[in-house]
Amino acid sequence: MVESWSFLDTAESNFRPLVVIELAKGTKEETIEWFTKRIVDKKANGGAQLLMKPLVTENGVENIYLVGASPLRLLLGAEAVGLVKECSDNSMRTFTYSSRKTFKHYADDNHDFLTMAECQYIIKHELENLRAKDEKMIPGYPQAKLYPGKSIVRRLLTSGILVQIFPLHDREELKKLSHNWYGRVKIGYQPLDDIRCYFGETIALYFGFLEYFTFALIPMAVIGIPYYVFAWEDYDKYVMFATFNLLWSTVILEVWKRMCAILTYRWGTLLMKRQFEEPRPGFHGVLGINPVTGREEPMYSSIKRQLRIYLVSLPFVCLCLYFSLYVMMIYFDLEQWALDYHKENESNFSSLMLYVPSIIYAVVIEIMNLIYRYAAEFLTSWENHRLESSYQNHLILKVLVFNFLNCFASLFYIAFVMFDMKLLRQSLATLLITSQILNQFAESLLPYWLQKRYNRRMKKRMCSTKTDMDLSLAEQVNMEKEMGTYLGTFDDYLELFLQFGYVSLFSCVYPLAAVFAVLNNITEIYSDALKMCRVYKRPFAEPTANIGVWQLAFETMSVISVVTNCILIGMSPEVDALFPDSKMDLVLTVALVEHLLLAIKFIMAFVIPDKPRDIQMKLAKLEFESLEALKQQ
Amino acid sequence: MVESWSFLDTAESNFRPLVVIELAKGTKEETIEWFTKRIVDKKANGGAQLLMKPLVTENGVENIYLVGASPLRLLLGAEAVGLVKECSDNSMRTFTYSSRKTFKHYADDNHDFLTMAECQYIIKHELENLRAKDEKMIPGYPQAKLYPGKSIVRRLLTSGILVQIFPLHDREELKKLSHNWYGRVKIGYQPLDDIRCYFGETIALYFGFLEYFTFALIPMAVIGIPYYVFAWEDYDKYVMFATFNLLWSTVILEVWKRMCAILTYRWGTLLMKRQFEEPRPGFHGVLGINPVTGREEPMYSSIKRQLRIYLVSLPFVCLCLYFSLYVMMIYFDLEQWALDYHKENESNFSSLMLYVPSIIYAVVIEIMNLIYRYAAEFLTSWENHRLESSYQNHLILKVLVFNFLNCFASLFYIAFVMFDMKLLRQSLATLLITSQILNQFAESLLPYWLQKRYNRRMKKRMCSTKTDMDLSLAEQVNMEKEMGTYLGTFDDYLELFLQFGYVSLFSCVYPLAAVFAVLNNITEIYSDALKMCRVYKRPFAEPTANIGVWQLAFETMSVISVVTNCILIGMSPEVDALFPDSKMDLVLTVALVEHLLLAIKFIMAFVIPDKPRDIQMKLAKLEFESLEALKQQ
Repeated sequence: MVESWSFLDTAESNFRPLVVIELAKGTKEETIEWFTKRIVDKKANGGAQLLMKPLVTENGVENIYLVGASPLRLLLGAEAVGLVKECSDNSMRTFTYSSRKTFKHYADDNHDFLTMAECQYIIKHELENLRAKDEKMIPGYPQAKLYPGKSIVRRLLTSGILVQIFPLHDREELKKLSHNWYGRVKIGYQPLDDIRCYFGETIALYFGFLEYFTFALIPMAVIGIPYYVFAWEDYDKYVMFATFNLLWSTVILEVWKRMCAILTYRWGTLLMKRQFEEPRPGFHGVLGINPVTGREEPMYSSIKRQLRIYLVSLPFVCLCLYFSLYVMMIYFDLEQWALDYHKENESNFSSLMLYVPSIIYAVVIEIMNLIYRYAAEFLTSWENHRLESSYQNHLILKVLVFNFLNCFASLFYIAFVMFDMKLLRQSLATLLITSQILNQFAESLLPYWLQKRYNRRMKKRMCSTKTDMDLSLAEQVNMEKEMGTYLGTFDDYLELFLQFGYVSLFSCVYPLAAVFAVLNNITEIYSDALKMCRVYKRPFAEPTANIGVWQLAFETMSVISVVTNCILIGMSPEVDALFPDSKMDLVLTVALVEHLLLAIKFIMAFVIPDKPRDIQMKLAKLEFESLEALKQQ
Repeated sequence: MVESWSFLDTAESNFRPLVVIELAKGTKEETIEWFTKRIVDKKANGGAQLLMKPLVTENGVENIYLVGASPLRLLLGAEAVGLVKECSDNSMRTFTYSSRKTFKHYADDNHDFLTMAECQYIIKHELENLRAKDEKMIPGYPQAKLYPGKSIVRRLLTSGILVQIFPLHDREELKKLSHNWYGRVKIGYQPLDDIRCYFGETIALYFGFLEYFTFALIPMAVIGIPYYVFAWEDYDKYVMFATFNLLWSTVILEVWKRMCAILTYRWGTLLMKRQFEEPRPGFHGVLGINPVTGREEPMYSSIKRQLRIYLVSLPFVCLCLYFSLYVMMIYFDLEQWALDYHKENESNFSSLMLYVPSIIYAVVIEIMNLIYRYAAEFLTSWENHRLESSYQNHLILKVLVFNFLNCFASLFYIAFVMFDMKLLRQSLATLLITSQILNQFAESLLPYWLQKRYNRRMKKRMCSTKTDMDLSLAEQVNMEKEMGTYLGTFDDYLELFLQFGYVSLFSCVYPLAAVFAVLNNITEIYSDALKMCRVYKRPFAEPTANIGVWQLAFETMSVISVVTNCILIGMSPEVDALFPDSKMDLVLTVALVEHLLLAIKFIMAFVIPDKPRDIQMKLAKLEFESLEALKQQ
């Protein structure tokens, strides 16, 4: 890989820039000097022992710095972050410097042993763990307070001195990756291992899930097509489809856990010990001694946080949900009014007016989603969670509940209050297809086009006709630092989650939904890949062993869909006709079937093991070895 | 404690007998010699390095051996089994010999540092891990095959040469414990820590659960009493009671997890690393290399086991369930026939005949339970599970399902087919009270009485008028080896599980059930304590961190009881009267309420943390320290 960096033009031959640090314009000289010293200082002196060089462009030094590290430093860092790599005997083990020779592909002169994403992750980890010693403040900025043990980089970020830290792209690798990934038309799997090497496990796992989910939807889509083609409207066929759908969705979610274990075992993150989690950057409170670590850090009473959650956030979310329902009712009123108006006047204008309520409602929903998202972020940050993971969980929960209601409330209303199956099918199709098109456009194509335009202008300004590959490092850094920042997989998973809702909640009414979902996901893979490779700054790799709270969200959705589908089938006129004498019997039968299906779901989730047998064996073997090793000690 | 062993009369002053080994009468001399040598041999030579002495009685040597160990050996053994003890700074840590000075109460001459139960557990562990080296068979018994790595004690047990291994009682400690526990009439908690010290964690946790469960039932009982006293029959009062009951049962099961964490943290088992599980004694198969351990051991294909489970055991269990239902139907027919007969004849004889069906049914149920239990044990053992834990889980599942149906099927039939609430209340009361009285009698009082009679005869034969405390060691061993063996907590938990069913499944029909349950459990504590202390041999201590599969069983029961209670309330005439126009509305309302209650249950289970905050902090602190220690390395 070092060879591919032959276009380096800044530094001595063995300095390989990995991470870019951008300081604010006009940062004081003494601050820069102190910060640089702390980064390059020896570990023993409390430094990070990394390499750091200013980026020299035509305009001189611009407060942009490149950070790298010696190969030895990176190996020691890999041990510090607890990286798990493959050994020569094909088993996965936690890397330690002393046992380095036992690892596959390790050689003292092989600088490809750690992938570039791993190196960047290590540097990020080292930078974030660079802690204040006895400094009381950041030199030159008395208002930016420090205390022993406080992460320097986090304080620099929160006080605005540090603009951003981001990892550099590797143009050559990126070109190879994007060619394999989306550059050629091919039928086949994504190069997940390559994606993981380049972007890290969190992003690779998202693409793995997207691909898996698409394949898993294909059987539903295949079974759904004849319903559309032959316009099957028989009761028994719908029941069959819905039952298959419900059991299938349980199976795919369980099997995904196994797939996920296979992937993350191969990538080493399944075995990786969870790092001790530091307080998140925004966390504030009175300085105190953390009883767990014994270190000085801000303390915030958990009771206060609980009060904020249950007395402010919870009522606020409920209010928003109520408001969203209220808006929905207004929409239905408007719709009715437009219909009445059209009946009265029967003019061109009145038939145009028929579309107005839907358009207004769609726009209002989008605006509400946007405002709510900001409110949720503000509230969750105000709840002052100590850990990033707990912040994320609370944010996801808030956004999920609201999005669920916003997207599906009107469908629930049409289905279970208006009992209008025809309108339900129509609304479902409209909502699904519109949201898919809008998403694809807003999420990938628009930013791509903007980025492309910006790049072209940039290049013109640099008066060069060079291709991407010929760019100097300075030009590359300048271009990348202006790219947007990828904010994580949240929105991508949310989109899949809502799609799963459209497919499964009302599956017995609109079997074609799965077909649209499959088609969407195929293009989604391409547009998301494009987005990752061309639109955004390279994100830091983030090791992860599973898709976290999303597994739970998808499982909850599949439980809810059992209930909705059973009710829908019970309401269909064909089923109604089977119980001509007693509506009671109908309702009781539906309730019984629903409970049986739920029981089967839970039993299936219980019986299917979460990890495949061979992964279980490998984990058991590792555990046995570590127990034996302990005994030997 | 050593002082309390002053009545030792067999061995040198520093040999403290802990465990008794009884060999079969007529065991060959060479076998005994070889076995003894292996037990006392140095660790380095593959021995267990324990102390072993024959028990000398008036009749000479009787193939009974006493096993003990030097204090140093016990400390090393404590490290090998991964015992967790309290340190001087009140934190819990895994004991290692090298860090022994940092532990609370440790002193080189303090032989109370390890409790007697811990010492006995260590000796059991060492004996079971005594493995064959290059012996092909047990000397003197060519049919008892050995292979390198095979546990010698297990082979001796399966080939009948070793009759039993059991830990000795400590008469003085036992007297103190039984006095504190059940010897005096007092209101207060059980001495759980003392029970744990004497009987180990599994048994102490059972008594902890029994006590907790009894206290948790008190609110239900208190609320239930006025329903009986004032003969409340209002609909709204029953609904209130049932709702309280359902939510309360969720809360108590969640809170138990927290209580359990507090107890097992204090006892050290929460932190104890799971030992690598050896194949269970009955496991057989072709010799092969275990891919996990690399050791030679019997191998049995998992597919064959799955086939046995799903093609034989599952159909058999279903058949038994069907048969049990069939017997129930016969019972109802008989009941009807007796009623008709009584109506026709109206004689004394006919009114006596009214009771006959119930008596026959009760007897048949008991017989069926017994036969089924043997069948389940046979089938589960035939399924050839490799691990004891997996054997236990499959056995528990089989027995639970059958017992559930056998006990509750007639009640379900009365409630949901015959719709006879009065009969339901009556049957419930009869079943609950009868089963409680029968259990108390069969489980504790009868064996106690038998044991007492036997002891008296024994003592008479020994021609002594000594009290228990004055018995010589030989007399004590001879008496204890004839005592029954405690077969584990299974039956005790099963009884509580069924009781929980009686209390919660039909709680809105019979609020008084909780009162009987509380009364029963108070005497149950005493009779179980009596059973443990006086009736059975002392059992080996077994470390455990929770009540395992029973937690799941109780939670499942509480989910089922939501469904049954909602239906019962929906069926009551008072609720019926609220929906005079439409039965549909009634059913829909009930279904809605049921789903809401289930949702609340799941959310509550999710929101209430499984471990109290301070235990979480302590665990986090330990994890942090071990991560830091790894970094320092």
